[in-house]
Amino acid sequence: MQIGMIGLGRMGANIVRRLMKNGGHQAVVYDKSDKVVAAVVGEGAAGASDLEDFVSKLEKPRTVWIMLPAGAITESTIDTIARLLDRDDVVIDGGNTFWQDDIRRARTLREKGIHYVDVGTSGGVWGFERGYCMMIGGDKAVVDRLDPIFAAMAPGRGDIPRTPSRDGRDPRVEQGYLHAGPVGAGHFVKMVHNGIEYGLMQAYAEGFDILKNANIDALPDDHRFKLDLADIAEVWRRGSVIPSWLLDLTASALARSETLEAYSGFVADSGEGRWTINAAIDEAVPAEVLTAALFARFRSRRQHTFAEKILSAMREGFGGHKESGEGDSSTKGRAAS
Amino acid sequence: MQIGMIGLGRMGANIVRRLMKNGGHQAVVYDKSDKVVAAVVGEGAAGASDLEDFVSKLEKPRTVWIMLPAGAITESTIDTIARLLDRDDVVIDGGNTFWQDDIRRARTLREKGIHYVDVGTSGGVWGFERGYCMMIGGDKAVVDRLDPIFAAMAPGRGDIPRTPSRDGRDPRVEQGYLHAGPVGAGHFVKMVHNGIEYGLMQAYAEGFDILKNANIDALPDDHRFKLDLADIAEVWRRGSVIPSWLLDLTASALARSETLEAYSGFVADSGEGRWTINAAIDEAVPAEVLTAALFARFRSRRQHTFAEKILSAMREGFGGHKESGEGDSSTKGRAAS
Amino acid sequence: MQIGMIGLGRMGANIVRRLMKNGGHQAVVYDKSDKVVAAVVGEGAAGASDLEDFVSKLEKPRTVWIMLPAGAITESTIDTIARLLDRDDVVIDGGNTFWQDDIRRARTLREKGIHYVDVGTSGGVWGFERGYCMMIGGDKAVVDRLDPIFAAMAPGRGDIPRTPSRDGRDPRVEQGYLHAGPVGAGHFVKMVHNGIEYGLMQAYAEGFDILKNANIDALPDDHRFKLDLADIAEVWRRGSVIPSWLLDLTASALARSETLEAYSGFVADSGEGRWTINAAIDEAVPAEVLTAALFARFRSRRQHTFAEKILSAMREGFGGHKESGEGDSSTKGRAAS
Amino acid sequence: MQIGMIGLGRMGANIVRRLMKNGGHQAVVYDKSDKVVAAVVGEGAAGASDLEDFVSKLEKPRTVWIMLPAGAITESTIDTIARLLDRDDVVIDGGNTFWQDDIRRARTLREKGIHYVDVGTSGGVWGFERGYCMMIGGDKAVVDRLDPIFAAMAPGRGDIPRTPSRDGRDPRVEQGYLHAGPVGAGHFVKMVHNGIEYGLMQAYAEGFDILKNANIDALPDDHRFKLDLADIAEVWRRGSVIPSWLLDLTASALARSETLEAYSGFVADSGEGRWTINAAIDEAVPAEVLTAALFARFRSRRQHTFAEKILSAMREGFGGHKESGEGDSSTKGRAAS
Repeated sequence: MQIGMIGLGRMGANIVRRLMKNGGHQAVVYDKSDKVVAAVVGEGAAGASDLEDFVSKLEKPRTVWIMLPAGAITESTIDTIARLLDRDDVVIDGGNTFWQDDIRRARTLREKGIHYVDVGTSGGVWGFERGYCMMIGGDKAVVDRLDPIFAAMAPGRGDIPRTPSRDGRDPRVEQGYLHAGPVGAGHFVKMVHNGIEYGLMQAYAEGFDILKNANIDALPDDHRFKLDLADIAEVWRRGSVIPSWLLDLTASALARSETLEAYSGFVADSGEGRWTINAAIDEAVPAEVLTAALFARFRSRRQHTFAEKILSAMREGFGGHKESGEGDSSTKGRAAS
Repeated sequence: MQIGMIGLGRMGANIVRRLMKNGGHQAVVYDKSDKVVAAVVGEGAAGASDLEDFVSKLEKPRTVWIMLPAGAITESTIDTIARLLDRDDVVIDGGNTFWQDDIRRARTLREKGIHYVDVGTSGGVWGFERGYCMMIGGDKAVVDRLDPIFAAMAPGRGDIPRTPSRDGRDPRVEQGYLHAGPVGAGHFVKMVHNGIEYGLMQAYAEGFDILKNANIDALPDDHRFKLDLADIAEVWRRGSVIPSWLLDLTASALARSETLEAYSGFVADSGEGRWTINAAIDEAVPAEVLTAALFARFRSRRQHTFAEKILSAMREGFGGHKESGEGDSSTKGRAAS
Repeated sequence: MQIGMIGLGRMGANIVRRLMKNGGHQAVVYDKSDKVVAAVVGEGAAGASDLEDFVSKLEKPRTVWIMLPAGAITESTIDTIARLLDRDDVVIDGGNTFWQDDIRRARTLREKGIHYVDVGTSGGVWGFERGYCMMIGGDKAVVDRLDPIFAAMAPGRGDIPRTPSRDGRDPRVEQGYLHAGPVGAGHFVKMVHNGIEYGLMQAYAEGFDILKNANIDALPDDHRFKLDLADIAEVWRRGSVIPSWLLDLTASALARSETLEAYSGFVADSGEGRWTINAAIDEAVPAEVLTAALFARFRSRRQHTFAEKILSAMREGFGGHKESGEGDSSTKGRAAS
Repeated sequence: MQIGMIGLGRMGANIVRRLMKNGGHQAVVYDKSDKVVAAVVGEGAAGASDLEDFVSKLEKPRTVWIMLPAGAITESTIDTIARLLDRDDVVIDGGNTFWQDDIRRARTLREKGIHYVDVGTSGGVWGFERGYCMMIGGDKAVVDRLDPIFAAMAPGRGDIPRTPSRDGRDPRVEQGYLHAGPVGAGHFVKMVHNGIEYGLMQAYAEGFDILKNANIDALPDDHRFKLDLADIAEVWRRGSVIPSWLLDLTASALARSETLEAYSGFVADSGEGRWTINAAIDEAVPAEVLTAALFARFRSRRQHTFAEKILSAMREGFGGHKESGEGDSSTKGRAAS
């Protein structure tokens, strides 16, 4: 089957590679950078010089996969490409788009007879090798039409043990892709996946922080431990209750350097963690852990919050407390209040 | 009535002053600094050169108020003074002592016939003028004996409106002091007071942070506001649902300088916020807000947590994400994850 | 000055009463219930039988205050009234409207030359007596025109102590009303006010919960206290760091009944707490306490969350743990995991 | 090698079975229930009728593994057995003991020349088959002496991929057991393991709750999704960022029944989650996620908190708000505040 790919970043290029290698599919590729187009053309794809050229090289009904940063670029690319496409063509947004944008766009494209499919695509830099976990939203007939694409991208069953009691359920799910529901459902499920991801990461992170600080001076001497974090991460991978891929990655990082001195601790967040909390609020679902994980990232990017200055101002107001110097260790910061 | 005061810091000296001025009480005072002793002696107290001298100047049964930083100093001072006191003397710990230490100490002193009373004392630097709110733990007979002291220290009814439905209740409470229960109860109630204090402070602080950041570039132009925080704090003092003394102090600080540039945002915590959470855990009471307020202070004292480095290491592991530079604004820190 | 009031619920009727009594203003009133219209007419207002009648009784330029539940009713009422109004008339939304709705509506009304003003109005059932704290968004000229209304509604300076360092600042703020900025700013500031309100309330609530549970069987005998919550609330009103109006209300409720048996603990939330968190997320401001307070309300309205069932299912999966019965006390729920 | 096992519950019996089967070790077993002793004797162990008998059947230097519920039973059993043991014997506590109790006990036993080793043992009901992940605290020489025991209990390397960059590190760790440090270190690391476990569980749980509630009436029709939670859990196991053993267990449970109607949502907690937060507080490490996970369990065991009643009382106080009935759905609980 033939697919057109717009956007050859980390994800887009590897998806094309996997489709060609794994499924014997053909790809037409476009990127604003000629250089990256040339690279993927060198591996067997057909290149396009602009979007008109791109569309002209696709057989009808066309399949266009857009793999660009969520937001304005994706939006304007879909606007442009929609003007070039015909009835029954399909636009797939495989990026981290906000699911309500999917619903709005699909409504617009539907007026022109163009199908829209949203694919939440997980797998990061390992996808080419491991395959991509895909959460798909769209009309059943269209998603079924695209099945060869999804099947080639998916990790397949591999040696992951089968879950009992799944007889009679959709077998595609065990290959690693899921038709989650109508347009928007794919990105909705991917959004919650990322929300959970933040929570899991923060749980491990706090745990290792507690282990790391088990040796601080402020603790009584007989209650201090100097622990080997790399060995702890490793041993937990083996027979404990908490093994996971995220723990594997942590064990690797700690084995390379237990102090993680290569990292400053400035942690970005994508929109998906934020939208997860918005969804929880809309549904009146308490989501303390997922929210705390998001806020920890917000906080990591500020030297101090204004909130903290308010606290200091209040403390001086009622108690005459002067701020300790920044150089103080955390526990020296204890004082009567 | 005569009282002996050990410790003439911010709180101790003002308590002595208020007792002398408000209740016509006599005070014998001791501090390791001769200079501060001399200052209070100059205002009418009798000074002591050491603890033996101090004890010798007190009439039996003696009343010794200890107003020192909670922890080792208070502990060793009580040990020392206990050796000098006699049956039926009273030791009062008016500091921010951990309530379980009170219970332990009282048990030891009781063997010698010495009484122990714990007084959680709130009022900060304003206590001399406003009076002190006191939460008292100890045997009823002993607390009753000390009533003239507490009555003179307390703010009294003033012009604070009376709470309806209090007929038949202990009238001392409306004067601003409470016999909360047996030894330890005073500091337990004061501990929870401080735990609440942290939560209230953080609630205001977060609110003002949201107001402050309502004008950041990352927001859409038509959704930005440049707000006057000093005026907002002021207007909330008048007829809203959230007036409080803490808001008064915030309004004052913001009126002086809306940017609070005098403060860095490095926020200390005393033990009481911590013990409050420990108590919540012992009781299996969910205390999300009080805990979040404490953790915000912990976080304020670190440039980065180790947890944040773990997050960065994981993100690089699964997604190849490089950390943005520290110079980035918070919202530039958004990226695909 | 003349004002038209649509909506004579708890807030609307009292605002009209205060305007007539305090400022000598005239009011034309409308409500879908003839009975409540008749009641307010009996106190001196002019009644209207429908919106056409309402508009016809107002002098140009008209001032229409809408005091309805935020959402669909307010929206449709504004749509209807806008068709009846003329250039230079003013529509005031005094309800708890989402500030982005204000911005959208003002844009629409501006095309017809109609002004829009959003007023976040705090004061609850006490407003008639205490006055209303108002946070106002709109064009300066329009807000200035309405000043006699706001001045009459506001609490005025009263005996609330003045904040130092406010010389040269807008004196209206000390009367209890603030022109916060352009359209939307009023409800934005009111939204954050309510967000803070939730946080403050939850801080007190958790504190009292810890006090209440200080006597549970699961604690060691010598670490248990039976505390008088009504007296504790009362004493904290007097000289402590945490007095506030919310504490006054708590002290009253506890004095009436220390067990609060009249309440089940099912706690509603308005939109404003939710929007505050949405705003914090948009601004990347960590707002742990305000969020925890909101989530505690969500949780209070469910017997169990689905999340909790997931936890139980996992625990059975890895540890064979059976759920304890609902009848168990909280601490009996401890078990190996 | 010979081992004595006291306590033949879920964990103890399986450990003995694994030691006999996997390492060819001999076991002497004791339990207060003759019946369970008989069962394990039937599988090859030597049974003991009481602790004297038990000790007499062990060769010197004796190795006694205690596998009892943490707390009073473990404590008194160690006291008793210590009176029967001799210099150079070893007591191993393999339960979920508080690490500070380990330190205290080891100090006492050391006076008699008896060694103490704490082993945090993870693996739950699957340990017999998968092996046990062990985190060990104690003197090096003693831990080394016990190595055959640990090696037989551990899962071994299996087919878990090796972590890069571990050359030169302790090879036992890759077998699934770790000498973490001196006495107490084993249970300390296990404690944090459980703290993390709570956080991971809660992150998944909240995510599935958001998915579950994506179809509630309160949402706009075009923003609702009816999602298949079992399929979502399954697809995430395959190529996503969040696979883990806990997710495997969740997928199994949801495949059996998507509504989890077998569970009420009453979630116990062991001490270890609590101690983890206590440790974070002692170290001044912010641990929002781990704490929120613990508090969610506390909350799951109450119909309502007293805190929630306080909120309702305040809301009635300032706004005249009456509580909605319990029968209301969560979103009907929205109201002006």
